[in-house]
Amino acid sequence: MPGANRPLTAQEVAAHSSRESCWIIVHGNVYDVTDFLDGGSKVILKYAGKDATKEYDPIHPPDAITTNLKPDKHLGPIDRSTIDQTTSDDPTSEEERARQGRISSRPRLSEILNLHDFEAVARQVMPDKAWAYYSSAADDEITHRENHAAFHRIWFRPRILRDVTKVDWSTRILGHQSSMPVYITATALGKLGHPDGELNLTRAAAKHGLIQMIPTLASCSFDEIVDAADAAQVLFFQLYVNKDRSITKRIVEHAEARGIKALFITVDAPQLGRREKDMRQKFDAEDPSEVSKAGQGNVDRSQGAARAISSFIDPGLQWADLDWFRRITKMPLILKGVQCWEDALEAYDRGLAGVVLSNHGGRQLDFARSGVEVLAEVVAQLKERRGLKFPNEKFQLFVDGGVRRATDVIKAVALGATAVGIGRPFLYAYSSYGPDGIDKALQILHDEFEMNMRLLGARTIAEIVPEMVDASNIHTHVVPVPMDNLFEGNYEKLLGARLRDVKSKL
Amino acid sequence: MPGANRPLTAQEVAAHSSRESCWIIVHGNVYDVTDFLDGGSKVILKYAGKDATKEYDPIHPPDAITTNLKPDKHLGPIDRSTIDQTTSDDPTSEEERARQGRISSRPRLSEILNLHDFEAVARQVMPDKAWAYYSSAADDEITHRENHAAFHRIWFRPRILRDVTKVDWSTRILGHQSSMPVYITATALGKLGHPDGELNLTRAAAKHGLIQMIPTLASCSFDEIVDAADAAQVLFFQLYVNKDRSITKRIVEHAEARGIKALFITVDAPQLGRREKDMRQKFDAEDPSEVSKAGQGNVDRSQGAARAISSFIDPGLQWADLDWFRRITKMPLILKGVQCWEDALEAYDRGLAGVVLSNHGGRQLDFARSGVEVLAEVVAQLKERRGLKFPNEKFQLFVDGGVRRATDVIKAVALGATAVGIGRPFLYAYSSYGPDGIDKALQILHDEFEMNMRLLGARTIAEIVPEMVDASNIHTHVVPVPMDNLFEGNYEKLLGARLRDVKSKL
Amino acid sequence: MPGANRPLTAQEVAAHSSRESCWIIVHGNVYDVTDFLDGGSKVILKYAGKDATKEYDPIHPPDAITTNLKPDKHLGPIDRSTIDQTTSDDPTSEEERARQGRISSRPRLSEILNLHDFEAVARQVMPDKAWAYYSSAADDEITHRENHAAFHRIWFRPRILRDVTKVDWSTRILGHQSSMPVYITATALGKLGHPDGELNLTRAAAKHGLIQMIPTLASCSFDEIVDAADAAQVLFFQLYVNKDRSITKRIVEHAEARGIKALFITVDAPQLGRREKDMRQKFDAEDPSEVSKAGQGNVDRSQGAARAISSFIDPGLQWADLDWFRRITKMPLILKGVQCWEDALEAYDRGLAGVVLSNHGGRQLDFARSGVEVLAEVVAQLKERRGLKFPNEKFQLFVDGGVRRATDVIKAVALGATAVGIGRPFLYAYSSYGPDGIDKALQILHDEFEMNMRLLGARTIAEIVPEMVDASNIHTHVVPVPMDNLFEGNYEKLLGARLRDVKSKL
Amino acid sequence: MPGANRPLTAQEVAAHSSRESCWIIVHGNVYDVTDFLDGGSKVILKYAGKDATKEYDPIHPPDAITTNLKPDKHLGPIDRSTIDQTTSDDPTSEEERARQGRISSRPRLSEILNLHDFEAVARQVMPDKAWAYYSSAADDEITHRENHAAFHRIWFRPRILRDVTKVDWSTRILGHQSSMPVYITATALGKLGHPDGELNLTRAAAKHGLIQMIPTLASCSFDEIVDAADAAQVLFFQLYVNKDRSITKRIVEHAEARGIKALFITVDAPQLGRREKDMRQKFDAEDPSEVSKAGQGNVDRSQGAARAISSFIDPGLQWADLDWFRRITKMPLILKGVQCWEDALEAYDRGLAGVVLSNHGGRQLDFARSGVEVLAEVVAQLKERRGLKFPNEKFQLFVDGGVRRATDVIKAVALGATAVGIGRPFLYAYSSYGPDGIDKALQILHDEFEMNMRLLGARTIAEIVPEMVDASNIHTHVVPVPMDNLFEGNYEKLLGARLRDVKSKL
Repeated sequence: MPGANRPLTAQEVAAHSSRESCWIIVHGNVYDVTDFLDGGSKVILKYAGKDATKEYDPIHPPDAITTNLKPDKHLGPIDRSTIDQTTSDDPTSEEERARQGRISSRPRLSEILNLHDFEAVARQVMPDKAWAYYSSAADDEITHRENHAAFHRIWFRPRILRDVTKVDWSTRILGHQSSMPVYITATALGKLGHPDGELNLTRAAAKHGLIQMIPTLASCSFDEIVDAADAAQVLFFQLYVNKDRSITKRIVEHAEARGIKALFITVDAPQLGRREKDMRQKFDAEDPSEVSKAGQGNVDRSQGAARAISSFIDPGLQWADLDWFRRITKMPLILKGVQCWEDALEAYDRGLAGVVLSNHGGRQLDFARSGVEVLAEVVAQLKERRGLKFPNEKFQLFVDGGVRRATDVIKAVALGATAVGIGRPFLYAYSSYGPDGIDKALQILHDEFEMNMRLLGARTIAEIVPEMVDASNIHTHVVPVPMDNLFEGNYEKLLGARLRDVKSKL
Repeated sequence: MPGANRPLTAQEVAAHSSRESCWIIVHGNVYDVTDFLDGGSKVILKYAGKDATKEYDPIHPPDAITTNLKPDKHLGPIDRSTIDQTTSDDPTSEEERARQGRISSRPRLSEILNLHDFEAVARQVMPDKAWAYYSSAADDEITHRENHAAFHRIWFRPRILRDVTKVDWSTRILGHQSSMPVYITATALGKLGHPDGELNLTRAAAKHGLIQMIPTLASCSFDEIVDAADAAQVLFFQLYVNKDRSITKRIVEHAEARGIKALFITVDAPQLGRREKDMRQKFDAEDPSEVSKAGQGNVDRSQGAARAISSFIDPGLQWADLDWFRRITKMPLILKGVQCWEDALEAYDRGLAGVVLSNHGGRQLDFARSGVEVLAEVVAQLKERRGLKFPNEKFQLFVDGGVRRATDVIKAVALGATAVGIGRPFLYAYSSYGPDGIDKALQILHDEFEMNMRLLGARTIAEIVPEMVDASNIHTHVVPVPMDNLFEGNYEKLLGARLRDVKSKL
Repeated sequence: MPGANRPLTAQEVAAHSSRESCWIIVHGNVYDVTDFLDGGSKVILKYAGKDATKEYDPIHPPDAITTNLKPDKHLGPIDRSTIDQTTSDDPTSEEERARQGRISSRPRLSEILNLHDFEAVARQVMPDKAWAYYSSAADDEITHRENHAAFHRIWFRPRILRDVTKVDWSTRILGHQSSMPVYITATALGKLGHPDGELNLTRAAAKHGLIQMIPTLASCSFDEIVDAADAAQVLFFQLYVNKDRSITKRIVEHAEARGIKALFITVDAPQLGRREKDMRQKFDAEDPSEVSKAGQGNVDRSQGAARAISSFIDPGLQWADLDWFRRITKMPLILKGVQCWEDALEAYDRGLAGVVLSNHGGRQLDFARSGVEVLAEVVAQLKERRGLKFPNEKFQLFVDGGVRRATDVIKAVALGATAVGIGRPFLYAYSSYGPDGIDKALQILHDEFEMNMRLLGARTIAEIVPEMVDASNIHTHVVPVPMDNLFEGNYEKLLGARLRDVKSKL
Repeated sequence: MPGANRPLTAQEVAAHSSRESCWIIVHGNVYDVTDFLDGGSKVILKYAGKDATKEYDPIHPPDAITTNLKPDKHLGPIDRSTIDQTTSDDPTSEEERARQGRISSRPRLSEILNLHDFEAVARQVMPDKAWAYYSSAADDEITHRENHAAFHRIWFRPRILRDVTKVDWSTRILGHQSSMPVYITATALGKLGHPDGELNLTRAAAKHGLIQMIPTLASCSFDEIVDAADAAQVLFFQLYVNKDRSITKRIVEHAEARGIKALFITVDAPQLGRREKDMRQKFDAEDPSEVSKAGQGNVDRSQGAARAISSFIDPGLQWADLDWFRRITKMPLILKGVQCWEDALEAYDRGLAGVVLSNHGGRQLDFARSGVEVLAEVVAQLKERRGLKFPNEKFQLFVDGGVRRATDVIKAVALGATAVGIGRPFLYAYSSYGPDGIDKALQILHDEFEMNMRLLGARTIAEIVPEMVDASNIHTHVVPVPMDNLFEGNYEKLLGARLRDVKSKL
């Protein structure tokens, strides 16, 4: 075993920078990751023979490497004095200085009026790679935007002259109290936006009485997150099922042991989607001097962070596997990523606790319908076929994707959802302002709930009924006839009254 | 009692500039407004110890402070000589000079061709804060714009070969003559746009035979407005119901005593909406030197004019309260802000005189439907359930929101409305041109009524029948499928024939 | 009678430049037009005491003044030597020089590929006033553009494997041969675009075997136009009915005597519409030095060319008048401007020869539906109620408005129209290229007919059947939900592959 | 016979440069093409007396001139030394140098993420004329864009929890194996984009297990293409039927003899469409010094490449001709260009092997519906009228037009198509990167199929069923009501939170 007795030197490590033998340094230790190169993670080669800590951290929990790598591949500590600091340090590039300038010019938090605003700030202050990972979605990002747009096809039918002095938007999710019909849904790689990663969400959930769903692909380790929670704090867990079921079993049993209250099994990601904005960002960021002769370059390139971390997910997961889950855990099982009534019905008939109607934030199959559209279909069909009414204690429906306002949540609740998952907006909140950001985001939602329930005439979540919305256009997907450019080019727009001889204001 | 015997000095007032003791100067008198600080009006603190007259005037009737503040809080006159004129005066800022330049460059009034034009001018010549208050609406302002857009989904089916030499667009509203099926609806803070505030409307209503609805939140006092009216002039009154019903009772009885002909009770505003454009304007207007360290500033800030003046409104108002109103007044009662047929039916069954189908100009619940869309629903349902026909003498339907043309009014009348309320356009008319503006606005409407009734083949309001419109798309709320940016980016638009070697005109 | 014996001098004329006595010079003669000032033609005052020939010519037939003015108001010839040439001449302004530059830079006629192209050129080379008159429409010009857009909601269902070696798009209109199912519809003020005015159309109609509809408001006199026609050339006449029926009788009898084959009575214009683009152009064109103090100017201004020439039209025209028309003429009567099936049915039941489903090119009632949409309704209802099939020899349906391609015409024919009227595109054709332009325009239409009938699988007009189009969306008038500016502002558009280090082509 | 004994000189050739006698040089030989001038190919005159090789090559197969020209018009070889090299060479124009610069700045092939990207690059690096020919479409190009847009009205209903470890997207087309439900459809003039023309496609088809449909109007000769194919490679042939059926007979018999597996007879092109972008490009490219006096130029000009090469196509082709085809060949017959269910039914009843639902890439009749829309109609009607189910072995449905993603193909397959033709994207792939480009394009499609079938829950093509898509909006063709420019002009868009004092990133 190399270096068993003394720290390895950077020179020794550097000698192993090929596909045949690939060593990397992470947090002061050297690992032989040659075996990992097969599974699609060719990106690792980029760091072969180097200190990969900075790249490794946001996309892996701290225990990932020790958990997944056999002990004999742990080669021992590096002699830090041998590392060339100048190369391992990120140069304070012009781009980074510009970003720091933007950070110091952020609007005050008090100027943030809604969840959209966090995204506007995050886009300016996040590193490009992190922004690309969080904001990207599948293919042409049609579903990503449709998720938001679908809410705009649902309109309110408010009621008047009800005593709305007191309004209460707290509810119960899978039997647990929540201060609003919202939960923090699972999103990967939380440290890309802030060094505390998912812990920002855990702490805010405690403060605001919300439930957090811990992601399998968190940057923080599962235990770090659970440890950060209050004693009574309710946590759910989102699971990507491993090809190696023994790993999955260990994870699930551990989760239950640590008090997790429900298991959300992701079923819409047998393979993680291509997110071209994320992929394209990588090329844009490259040193032009590296660029090989145009048209002939066929260097194999990374397919983005998502691919790098997800090769373990089992595309063979099937309905029959659910029985196995029931044997290894007593936690209620919910399927995350159901996209038509047929599968929701199947889940109900198999006795699951609920389903999340979701398309993975538009990151998987483009032209998948929005969760809130599927909700309308599921509620109608399960009523017709099984006589169910929603919201329903026994079989709960959740929706995520595209939510930006409390009114969006209220629309989903009116249609039958128990609660709605919010992901990206919370990431943007802490990526732009840290813990204060997520705190403010939740305060905004509370304020919006209070006002809009009053304006809608609903004093409790139970009073938000289907008759309060008009969703008759929810299934309408129109594309206008392409523009007649010749006609439009000739048409001279009407202009209104204009000032004379002076520059107008806008 | 301080200063009972001699005028107070500015120095004495300035000592009371904290949450614990807050004095302000208004119109030469000093008031202790410490008690008001609790009710959300923290904005007052900004003027603590100072002369607040300039800020106070447009957003309060002159008698507001004396009416609402107990006598022992009236601390007596200020010694004006002690006020530092330089600080209390508004410096003639560059921004203000630019605005004055724009005012002097206004188009002549004769160049104003339609109601849109007043808005175009007002946007240029109003102070930013006033423009922000008038023009802003709730959340994403979807409903605000939908109010206008909904009229564009209604198309005409004109009739021909009728003798339209004489056309008459006068009508009766709640039994009172009106020169057109339009009334001036209630809008708050009329002095923000012009020093005469609502009186501009009162005088124009007299001249043009229109009915004005006096707002609770007028800048002018109720009596000022009534006094400005002609003897025979019909006035309605819009009421925000106070948590303290004795105040409401006093107001209603006074209104009836002064000859008000109908009471419009606002039911869509248990809490005034968040208008982010208004809120954002406040931050933009601030001195950058005040800006605290970005991301850490959590100074509590004003939520805009609307919130400041509306904390008295009772969110507990309910159907049962209507009996009480019937006991204290004989004025016909109309509910303003009904938004679905169920509540319109309830109002009818309870014997009210009518309802205004309105979403408060898009300023309350975003994604509330437009009044004219709700109209189609209400007419259909009340016909089916109660056999009613509209327009109906006994139970009158009104609509407001988004009206810019006489054709908009005609569409609503065809669908069954008795009359239509117009608000913002009249404010913009006098904000841009004073009394001449509102005069011109009404003349434009008269001209448009004459022409369009002729072109439609309707000689009287009664001849404007449902068959004259096609409103079959009124309930259609579509959002196009998100754009395929890659395809659109590649598509090369057709270009028409172009000039050679010379700059084209446009 | 002044000047009976000798020519008048300019000085004498100049003395009569007031409302009380208003003389003008036209084509070398002096006329007293004081009496005309009452009828809304206050614009005349602008030329009081001056030579008005240049302004008068394009908007009046040469015989208009002598026909309409009593003989005693013909004051005799002017002594041309007394006219100050410098002031009566139009200075070669910078604007005019720029326009001449654009004229000389016109694309060659061979580069004109479609009817849109004429409009693109005309917009550049026409005088602003002429362009404004031709291109403007009512109010917000929604109907004007809808006329074109409606055709885009109709799609083809072409048939294959038919021998289309020979295709024939000639047809019969009211029993007369036409080389295509198109006629040249009536439009006013033809000389605004070219000194030969409507004669350009007459000559082209002869050459291409088309039927022209002579307008009442032609710039050329009726007889000039008829005289310019070939012996066998078929002409129709469009009639605005005069309040003074004796004038109308004289016109109709004269038309019949001169061989006019059909009388199209305009029924959609009891009053000519407000065309704000036209009106606004007038203000823009003015000398800024004339501009009175902003906000106080209330000079009465012209309402555009249309109003100036149309005050004689009778708004009292009604169904009963049609009997009178039948007594004074044997020409077939067609109503121009029918806009719903009820009036088409009435016209059929009264034995008329047909109707033109038209909204006057969008120049009258905004939000009137397009002719082609009304066509679908009329065909359906007249089939259901009277068992009619269309196209129909006995009762012919015509459509105008928004046509730019032969495919538009074919769509209307498929739905049941006998022929389609085209107006503006022909005006733009000769306004941009004179007689060659209109010749080319018709050649383009012929080419398009040949190709598209082949592609559609229709060898004759009779083979263009309803099954060849899908018009199921014709009645759909949608307005997308207003844009969510915050979401759209944050969304970062996908960008495709880009070149490096070099300017891209477009 | 001139020059029988010695090579001709350029001077001799140059003497024949008129309509009366027109000689051209192609590949070192002189031809008398005077007889060709009648048939619409006046473009030839441009090269009269000159070397036309460079222009001739991309738009004719090498054997075209010898095949079509009688032997006595083959005048023999040119003496190359007599050709003035400077004039026959294309000057390295500034435009061409700029294009070469763009070529060298192409993104590396590894940066190409989807089929759109090839188009983005091709637009930059192709010669303008070639780009214009490939990218142009009929009239206003509405159908061209609708072809793509129609897919956006079809949304997915993915299924979950199926074992998608292995997914297989291979299928059988007309009984022949294909690695995906895609074939390379016929497109003309392949050498415009790359000197190897269609051979690029043939080689890529071999490598990737695809079927290529050889076009009649290929730049390469039929035999060149067949020779380039592997022994077992399946090829189809697209046929334009010649007015001279003996030529067609010879072509078809030859195709069958060479092993072609199916004959696709084009039925949507009795005349080739007008493609205005292509036509306009010609004028733009011209030397301005040639431009005749504007407005008077009536030089007859080329109508683009398509017209030049297609005059032989028989517009008289009809259903009865199909019997003749059955007599001369045993190849299965498929009609290419069917556009309504009636014709698909006729094809089925006549025993054909299938139909391609296509509008010729939007290049023929504008406002023809997209193939995928027609597919929905055909499947529904043939089920109702003949009890057919699709995909169907006996009568296969194909679709082409607008495909850019594997998801587009999957949608068509779900609706009943056997396979989908892709044309332009493959041309753009090799036009931008040569053979590597088409290779990469097919690899991208394979990757997309794998991922999207997994995400959809379909393991085989047979598992892609109609229930997996929602195509309920496929027949919806809406055009939004024209924009209210005055309202929109006045509306002040909401702005989100903004940075202070610093330039934002985007």
